[in-house]
Amino acid sequence: MLITHPGPSVTSLVEGRNAVLEALRAGVEFDRILVVRDADRSKAIDEILSAACDRAIKVAEVPRGQLDALSVRGAHQGVVAEVAPFGYTTIADVLARVEDEEQALIIALDHITDPQNLGAVARTAEVVGAKCLLIPSKRSATVGPAAMKVSAGALAHLPVAKETNLVRALEQCKDAGFWVAGASETADQDVWDAPLEGRIVVVLGAEDSGLSRLVEERCDFLVGLPVAGEVGSLNVAQAATAIAFEWVRRQRFSQGS
Amino acid sequence: MLITHPGPSVTSLVEGRNAVLEALRAGVEFDRILVVRDADRSKAIDEILSAACDRAIKVAEVPRGQLDALSVRGAHQGVVAEVAPFGYTTIADVLARVEDEEQALIIALDHITDPQNLGAVARTAEVVGAKCLLIPSKRSATVGPAAMKVSAGALAHLPVAKETNLVRALEQCKDAGFWVAGASETADQDVWDAPLEGRIVVVLGAEDSGLSRLVEERCDFLVGLPVAGEVGSLNVAQAATAIAFEWVRRQRFSQGS
Repeated sequence: MLITHPGPSVTSLVEGRNAVLEALRAGVEFDRILVVRDADRSKAIDEILSAACDRAIKVAEVPRGQLDALSVRGAHQGVVAEVAPFGYTTIADVLARVEDEEQALIIALDHITDPQNLGAVARTAEVVGAKCLLIPSKRSATVGPAAMKVSAGALAHLPVAKETNLVRALEQCKDAGFWVAGASETADQDVWDAPLEGRIVVVLGAEDSGLSRLVEERCDFLVGLPVAGEVGSLNVAQAATAIAFEWVRRQRFSQGS
Repeated sequence: MLITHPGPSVTSLVEGRNAVLEALRAGVEFDRILVVRDADRSKAIDEILSAACDRAIKVAEVPRGQLDALSVRGAHQGVVAEVAPFGYTTIADVLARVEDEEQALIIALDHITDPQNLGAVARTAEVVGAKCLLIPSKRSATVGPAAMKVSAGALAHLPVAKETNLVRALEQCKDAGFWVAGASETADQDVWDAPLEGRIVVVLGAEDSGLSRLVEERCDFLVGLPVAGEVGSLNVAQAATAIAFEWVRRQRFSQGS
């Protein structure tokens, strides 16, 4: 089970044999894995120790009482792993790196709160070769084990720029020659009619409320996805996928011509 | 918590106040909601009763012992809801309905096992106006509360054809003038080069193993999605989204021309 330790250090912890094992397989970076001193050597424990050894993660044998004290759910099964803090980058760093690239995609998330959605968008972003995810540091899902697991390894490769002021970060992108495209259900042009070529930031809004007003005002244009059904909304990761692949298509056909 | 009752009737049950409430909000159809006779009228219980009344779902007050006996997790909190069996259709029915349509999309899932993926694909399918989802009846996720919740209402509208033999169902589609496109990482053409116009079945394979050999052999062609990143795979719902929107784009531009 994934939990956030309520103590003063606010370390993210993963507890339980299967949860730790799954997180290891998903590429979650751990600082340290704590195993109870008298652990019966189950297959899961052996796999955890072997994976930890392969990846040079420290393992400490500790008294059961220490795990009990750390455990929020009381279901640690003798294993608790401390998640390494994720290494965020800044938008300035990303922009400096892509200064000379005529084609570059950045995907920005305007206060997405579900870490699974963040992870799913990261998976798409990595596949299409986006330069980074851009997220605000407050009132937003951040990168932890839940997002990492859904990203299926993408967050181990994809830079994530975390900025206190998303609007200012978008302005920096514009100053660097990016066009900012906001995904919106109220857009009056479809993704296929929008000028999605070249250096593009695609901003997607929160699950319920969409783009915030200040962010939408900074967008150079809005793009929509046509809806043929009766229910008619994609989740943020699906919208990101459809728009990002349209950017890939443009890039490819503009290079081919 | 969503559970499948292990008794002979194999009714799907949802137990617990929040789980039942969330399922109601997600449009899950219930046959009946069982509430413990001496329930303290919490806000959640009141909301459940109100939603049940609005949607003409039967509510029965039962002794606590009956809920205890039904509950698998022992955490029913005084509420257990019986899920109405999903009304599947057949591929023959779907094909008969779309006989005269020049443009029609069907999305087939080749033994997808994760109901959340099924729900996510359904959400995309409904948005793009697909005629149905096509799934095999064995060794496949089927439509239950988990899929319904992720589909965000789409499964209340989208027909789902469940067939014992997926290969034979694909043959029926081909006989009815559909081209069968298999999504595959080993395809030698990208989605943009493939002939995705008109009457198309897109088949997507299982999370781990991809398309089964027999299904892949029945495909008229395979389509891939280009991968620029290092990790490089989309989940089945993201792949379905990218391919389905390319079908929409073709449809739109072929009509526009």
